[in-house]
Amino acid sequence: MRKPTAILLIDCPDRKGLVAAIGEFLYRHNANILHADQHQDPERNAFLMRVEWDLAGFDFDLAEFPEKFAPLAAQHGMRWRLERSDRPHRLALFVSKYDHCLADLLYRHQSGELACEIPLVIANHPDAERWATFHKIPFHMIPVEPGKKAEAEAKQLALLRENQINLVVLTRYMQVLSPQFVEQYPLRVINVHHSFLPAFSGAKPYHRAFERGVKLIGATSHYVTEELDEGPIIEQNVVRISHRDTLDDLLEKGRDMEKVVLSRAVRWHIDHRILVYDRKTVVFD
Amino acid sequence: MRKPTAILLIDCPDRKGLVAAIGEFLYRHNANILHADQHQDPERNAFLMRVEWDLAGFDFDLAEFPEKFAPLAAQHGMRWRLERSDRPHRLALFVSKYDHCLADLLYRHQSGELACEIPLVIANHPDAERWATFHKIPFHMIPVEPGKKAEAEAKQLALLRENQINLVVLTRYMQVLSPQFVEQYPLRVINVHHSFLPAFSGAKPYHRAFERGVKLIGATSHYVTEELDEGPIIEQNVVRISHRDTLDDLLEKGRDMEKVVLSRAVRWHIDHRILVYDRKTVVFD
Amino acid sequence: MRKPTAILLIDCPDRKGLVAAIGEFLYRHNANILHADQHQDPERNAFLMRVEWDLAGFDFDLAEFPEKFAPLAAQHGMRWRLERSDRPHRLALFVSKYDHCLADLLYRHQSGELACEIPLVIANHPDAERWATFHKIPFHMIPVEPGKKAEAEAKQLALLRENQINLVVLTRYMQVLSPQFVEQYPLRVINVHHSFLPAFSGAKPYHRAFERGVKLIGATSHYVTEELDEGPIIEQNVVRISHRDTLDDLLEKGRDMEKVVLSRAVRWHIDHRILVYDRKTVVFD
Amino acid sequence: MRKPTAILLIDCPDRKGLVAAIGEFLYRHNANILHADQHQDPERNAFLMRVEWDLAGFDFDLAEFPEKFAPLAAQHGMRWRLERSDRPHRLALFVSKYDHCLADLLYRHQSGELACEIPLVIANHPDAERWATFHKIPFHMIPVEPGKKAEAEAKQLALLRENQINLVVLTRYMQVLSPQFVEQYPLRVINVHHSFLPAFSGAKPYHRAFERGVKLIGATSHYVTEELDEGPIIEQNVVRISHRDTLDDLLEKGRDMEKVVLSRAVRWHIDHRILVYDRKTVVFD
Repeated sequence: MRKPTAILLIDCPDRKGLVAAIGEFLYRHNANILHADQHQDPERNAFLMRVEWDLAGFDFDLAEFPEKFAPLAAQHGMRWRLERSDRPHRLALFVSKYDHCLADLLYRHQSGELACEIPLVIANHPDAERWATFHKIPFHMIPVEPGKKAEAEAKQLALLRENQINLVVLTRYMQVLSPQFVEQYPLRVINVHHSFLPAFSGAKPYHRAFERGVKLIGATSHYVTEELDEGPIIEQNVVRISHRDTLDDLLEKGRDMEKVVLSRAVRWHIDHRILVYDRKTVVFD
Repeated sequence: MRKPTAILLIDCPDRKGLVAAIGEFLYRHNANILHADQHQDPERNAFLMRVEWDLAGFDFDLAEFPEKFAPLAAQHGMRWRLERSDRPHRLALFVSKYDHCLADLLYRHQSGELACEIPLVIANHPDAERWATFHKIPFHMIPVEPGKKAEAEAKQLALLRENQINLVVLTRYMQVLSPQFVEQYPLRVINVHHSFLPAFSGAKPYHRAFERGVKLIGATSHYVTEELDEGPIIEQNVVRISHRDTLDDLLEKGRDMEKVVLSRAVRWHIDHRILVYDRKTVVFD
Repeated sequence: MRKPTAILLIDCPDRKGLVAAIGEFLYRHNANILHADQHQDPERNAFLMRVEWDLAGFDFDLAEFPEKFAPLAAQHGMRWRLERSDRPHRLALFVSKYDHCLADLLYRHQSGELACEIPLVIANHPDAERWATFHKIPFHMIPVEPGKKAEAEAKQLALLRENQINLVVLTRYMQVLSPQFVEQYPLRVINVHHSFLPAFSGAKPYHRAFERGVKLIGATSHYVTEELDEGPIIEQNVVRISHRDTLDDLLEKGRDMEKVVLSRAVRWHIDHRILVYDRKTVVFD
Repeated sequence: MRKPTAILLIDCPDRKGLVAAIGEFLYRHNANILHADQHQDPERNAFLMRVEWDLAGFDFDLAEFPEKFAPLAAQHGMRWRLERSDRPHRLALFVSKYDHCLADLLYRHQSGELACEIPLVIANHPDAERWATFHKIPFHMIPVEPGKKAEAEAKQLALLRENQINLVVLTRYMQVLSPQFVEQYPLRVINVHHSFLPAFSGAKPYHRAFERGVKLIGATSHYVTEELDEGPIIEQNVVRISHRDTLDDLLEKGRDMEKVVLSRAVRWHIDHRILVYDRKTVVFD
């Protein structure tokens, strides 16, 4: 079990005295700061900060935080949110047929790398059930039939609410979520997709990358927004390939990249390390 | 000085007996094979081969090669070319204002990494002259004025012919070559450009990548064909960036990638290691 | 199921006519060559080759190969071996407490990435059993008690023989195998270990790397020989770290490297892509 | 010209109120903080911070900083130093015969990447002179004859003092500096050397790495301390190699790594981004 901590994430216009004011507020309430990281973006005059402190010794209950912090936040025009490490994220994993990312995340969860709860797996294909069973996680099969996506999403959303899910991870879920779904989980849905240099739009991108003789293939994890695959990028990675790689090799190396890139995004999210502003992320790693 | 060798590059339909036939031909003429590398592409039933042998002891003059090799080539439907290491490439380097790739290639040339001759540098901006002067290479300033590209290209082409140039390297040359220019140097013009995941088309790609918060930036070297930046890819590389990188950092890291990616492409080309088929390269590295 | 093919691996002194002779032998017997790759090491005058052909149409039974190939092999002083893709490797996975590499290999096996059979898992710690059970693979718990290694190894070797194992993979098996064990499986035991720049010998290398502030951590997979961790290197990889990484982050990133590096070594081995000469490997990838 | 800024680097025991106290001090004196970055090392209870502010509007002259900051520093047991961006570093580049790092650093300097002054190049081999001449930098040839190192170092040290040098960069300088030299420039001498997995000590490491078949070669830049090549690591990088790389390829790829790794270390140092504690660096990148 991790030590109970509070994590405060702040996004506001940059101005003098911010570090002093926030530092003073925390010190006055006897916070033992464990990590503090800030970033200034001069082009947008933005100040972004993540500060984490030990709850032992802090002099008021976090339930009162909004009230106590309000004057400072108002004075500096802060958007902020407070998270606590002892209220772990509750994740729903969505999966279709390709289960490599699902198996990888479940392994990392059970081995202690991912400090979260995973109360359910939702699939539109039956193959993934054995992984849920192995890890003793309830499995829900919700097929998405042509023309009946709204119906399927209604069932999914009901399950998410029942289970108090606050992060949806698309582990190679081959369905596009509707804008109505996405807006209920703003910056709370993480996806992974392949990436190529140059980019190939349309179907069968690995085949096209193979035909074109690209020398690198990669993967990108990002938040899902209404624009498909255009949400804020969280993590990217690539691997080198050559003419000696077959199409199967490309697919295999692509899967390895997807696992690494998705699991890192999930970990950063559940550790409250990501701040989104405009269309991009700052990862306080 | 490198040992005199012959390099034979072959591209033909795959069939039984090719390796035996080529091996037998070379052995019969007493070739001492130094390197042989082949690649089969089952999807297109293509056989591609690069074989290099020591000219010492080879039993006929290479001038007779076309005649002697013709029957075998005809029998198997081969496209082939023969190169010799003692006839080094003659390169023209084209440059605009950004001279990092030019300086890098000239350094590698004088230090012996690039076994070629560089009889001239052609620029449309005066700044690069000092590098040519330092390395004692004739410098030609040919400005490309609006609406007068044909005129400028005519001067360039005349210089290329006079100097018996057989490879043009665009070291950040900020002009698009006309199709008329390109068709005179088919697969003999190498360019480098930045690459991003996802790709950004249009102006100021580094600015847009910065705005979008990409986590990797890269560079691609390729042959120039009539379709801009769509020619066969030779080499690619990327470097990791974070929110802590400023736009200047991105540009600097991008320049470092461009140098590495362009110099490797040039080296492979002048060592006759690249075979192009369809729209892609096989690099016999 | 993979197409039945034969794979011939050759290691001999380099001389004229080798490619022709081997090519001619295969062509004469109607081999349809699928892949051929050779490497010449001028420093040692060594010629190394891997050639794979389709068994359909080949004009004699492979059981006769040694006899038929003997004259050619003798003439050129070849060390060679012949493998067939339809006689898949039989692997034993050895594991201790850390099961990330075991879980990863088992996943890759069941998803079809690794064309081999895995008849048993041997462990000296009970935790790994659940993975064997999940994948329906017999599990053997053989504790290695102080002073009784010979006894434990005798049991292990009996199991390997009974199961006709021809590759042992140490998936983070925290015991040193005795020279007596190793000599029964020469170049048939693959291990993985962490690697650092600079190297740290002795206990707790991650702790020492952390103290020293290294910027990269890596992993190496290699064949086990009598000299511990000094066997021929098969694959290596590294990942970037910074002062922001905790010791736990290092361990986690190290585990990710170990999985990738070990699985690639296993795949190359079972695809008969590795030739060892002197103390190093050539990987015909 | 860069905007005049002050950079404060702090290293002290971690305790409550540090961020508040430093922030308050700067705010009280009207500092406009441009960047602030801190790091806590829980294992050693260390707090490390880099804060940079705009000098425009700051309410006292930096000459008074030590006096004004003393009470706070004393109260928290801080080791600290103050740097200013308008007092650029003055670098001496030392070189032997291999000039790739020298040429690279000089190019980066003249192109504006490195905000420093380079008043002299010191060499023990004549070849580098042309680079100094090209860049119009005084060149001093100081041969180091056997048994006369003390004499040569005395000349070098005199030149460093005359030129008010505050950073010595060994750009492939093939001489070991004496402890007497090093102690005059503590954490003010940066070196680069090759790195291998596993490490090879002794002569001709590239040859030994080649013999051993390593799959990655790398380079490390570090501060020079009395223990040779054991000083705090600043930056590391690696590049993938294969059996197809000749020894020359290894050497060439190694040189490329050395350039990147050394130039990055120099840039971080002159931007005052490196804090050393115990035997390791924190790079506030």
